[in-house]
Amino acid sequence: MSKRVITLTTDFGADSPYVAAMKGVILGISPQATLVDVTHSIPPQDIRQGAIVLAEVCPRFPAETIHVAVVDPGVGTDRRLIYARFGNQHYLAPDNGLLSRLQRRTPATRLITVGEPAFWLKDVSETFHGRDILAPVAARISLGIDPELLGPKLPRMIELDWPLPQLEAQRLTGEIESIDHFGNLITNISRQDLAAIAQHQPLRVSCCGRQELPIVRTYGAQPRGTAVALVGSGGQLEIAVVEASAARELNAVVGAPVVISW
Amino acid sequence: MSKRVITLTTDFGADSPYVAAMKGVILGISPQATLVDVTHSIPPQDIRQGAIVLAEVCPRFPAETIHVAVVDPGVGTDRRLIYARFGNQHYLAPDNGLLSRLQRRTPATRLITVGEPAFWLKDVSETFHGRDILAPVAARISLGIDPELLGPKLPRMIELDWPLPQLEAQRLTGEIESIDHFGNLITNISRQDLAAIAQHQPLRVSCCGRQELPIVRTYGAQPRGTAVALVGSGGQLEIAVVEASAARELNAVVGAPVVISW
Amino acid sequence: MSKRVITLTTDFGADSPYVAAMKGVILGISPQATLVDVTHSIPPQDIRQGAIVLAEVCPRFPAETIHVAVVDPGVGTDRRLIYARFGNQHYLAPDNGLLSRLQRRTPATRLITVGEPAFWLKDVSETFHGRDILAPVAARISLGIDPELLGPKLPRMIELDWPLPQLEAQRLTGEIESIDHFGNLITNISRQDLAAIAQHQPLRVSCCGRQELPIVRTYGAQPRGTAVALVGSGGQLEIAVVEASAARELNAVVGAPVVISW
Repeated sequence: MSKRVITLTTDFGADSPYVAAMKGVILGISPQATLVDVTHSIPPQDIRQGAIVLAEVCPRFPAETIHVAVVDPGVGTDRRLIYARFGNQHYLAPDNGLLSRLQRRTPATRLITVGEPAFWLKDVSETFHGRDILAPVAARISLGIDPELLGPKLPRMIELDWPLPQLEAQRLTGEIESIDHFGNLITNISRQDLAAIAQHQPLRVSCCGRQELPIVRTYGAQPRGTAVALVGSGGQLEIAVVEASAARELNAVVGAPVVISW
Repeated sequence: MSKRVITLTTDFGADSPYVAAMKGVILGISPQATLVDVTHSIPPQDIRQGAIVLAEVCPRFPAETIHVAVVDPGVGTDRRLIYARFGNQHYLAPDNGLLSRLQRRTPATRLITVGEPAFWLKDVSETFHGRDILAPVAARISLGIDPELLGPKLPRMIELDWPLPQLEAQRLTGEIESIDHFGNLITNISRQDLAAIAQHQPLRVSCCGRQELPIVRTYGAQPRGTAVALVGSGGQLEIAVVEASAARELNAVVGAPVVISW
Repeated sequence: MSKRVITLTTDFGADSPYVAAMKGVILGISPQATLVDVTHSIPPQDIRQGAIVLAEVCPRFPAETIHVAVVDPGVGTDRRLIYARFGNQHYLAPDNGLLSRLQRRTPATRLITVGEPAFWLKDVSETFHGRDILAPVAARISLGIDPELLGPKLPRMIELDWPLPQLEAQRLTGEIESIDHFGNLITNISRQDLAAIAQHQPLRVSCCGRQELPIVRTYGAQPRGTAVALVGSGGQLEIAVVEASAARELNAVVGAPVVISW
């Protein structure tokens, strides 16, 4: 069978040897697997941020990719581990909301409890189920085992609340959902949300005390230092400062409101 | 022959282009090698920390994996480079103690000086033997050359001192050996050390001014902010603060004593 | 056909999920590609630093490696994307000087505008051409398409100015061109520049207020804390402080002059 891709997303920190331990386990079972790091820089135990990254990046991988996600403050308690199928891909994670952003977009077509120890390492630690349970299970899925064998079906996963932008008479109010490496502020206002209010012109965007940010198509179209709003590469409205960090320039934090009025 | 795994562990810094230079050399000689980063965030020239990570992570890789380690303050002096076989795996490193934690656990079954320039790059720099000597040697081992060809046998490697916990009448005194990304304090007290004193109950753990830390099975079993002691995923006693950084909360440093009394 | 190596160099930040998105696109088109990260820690939008890293690291990869570089402040404006062949390797980058350090060493043997959308993703965002154009184009080159098909030939690329050291009667004046993870100061004075003045002895090196730094062969040859000059692993004169950071000890910045006098 063909080579399978396994991706890893954790809060272990960039370049963590704990990630390497998971890779060692995977390659011991599935030597032909192609391993790709999505990121290990999810802030420690920040399930919400992990869920956002998974939903944005993982669907871009090939069909049958196996995605392993470990942001797991409840490790060793009775929280479940789950397998979910979204689209044509496989996901493994703790059942703590980490997959709920994907679920909000398109519900899983299969949802299974990872409960059958025959597929795990023989010795399972109390504190590192990513290495001892999810890594060997991912490796075995890459070898072709049927996910139905992993454990009993599950009726529903635990879901986080994902606030939608609020539409009022003359305004749409969203919020900053995450901040990227460049300091761009990614909002929960989508391209579709913008299309729905596009008949009202001009649209005025305000955020973090700045008023009337111009809506542009690209970072490079404005003079350096200008604060702008644009639809970013993930299809969400972003606030950016050309060739600088909007997070720093606007003193922005996750959760701050972003208002479009007309 | 089957695809071989080559791992890299260095102090070059996360995401260092020097690591990529080593990978370029390896893939030029052994295009089918699977490359895995263990970590490149060993503190600069911290041989002791490098040795701890190697002993913890590398044995989890498949049989015949080739591990390359470069924490090498003596590069360009007359320090040796060595090949060692531990268990069913291959290790390449400077002879400065970097492999001595592995050696302490189970002595190498083969120990060879990397001395034969036929297997190196043609031009060897004075300052980057990881790229110019160890990378091509690792690539050639992955292609199946006999490590005996690398150079003369060596009677013994340079070893660091690895302090063991001290057992007295009513106490066991260990120390903090490393601190992980989550701020958990990893001690030199092993699961076996604990088993040997388990008949004395209750055991009281103290560390960094905190007394009577409860010994628990998992991070998640206690309220957020509680300082606890538990056996971590590497089999060593750890001091952790639930959903927080023990290093920060307890103002902890490597080398600080950890006392178990009864 | 044999497995091809594709390398990635960006300013997205170590461990960025944006890099993973590029890898997902590549593996969807070219599942057998071997992906290697050169670095993603180029300072944001620092084209000059990106160009230095590309010229130093990429030529060490095997023949026919495909190098993708994204430091792209002009994304979404009318700046070009280009394909260049240097030596026996392929390079893809924005036409903003990022390949001009390679060009200065040995001019490209082919230079082509990446203009033919048939090889891109169907939906191209305004802000992430690395993922939507360069990643799929790299994947298709790895599958064997002729780069001539990518678009029209280009007569010349945009080049940055790369200052050469200045030779006067009794001195050679260069500058610090970059600073590595260890705090070593890499200058624009090459081994060849030094050979050209080697008949003048003794040579005295000064930098950042320090006079008469000894020229040595290796970091380890001097007592800890000594500031020294040596030819580094990239063939350039470096200023280092033994077992410490020259950047910190000498308060050094990129662009500061380095003078060799006799």
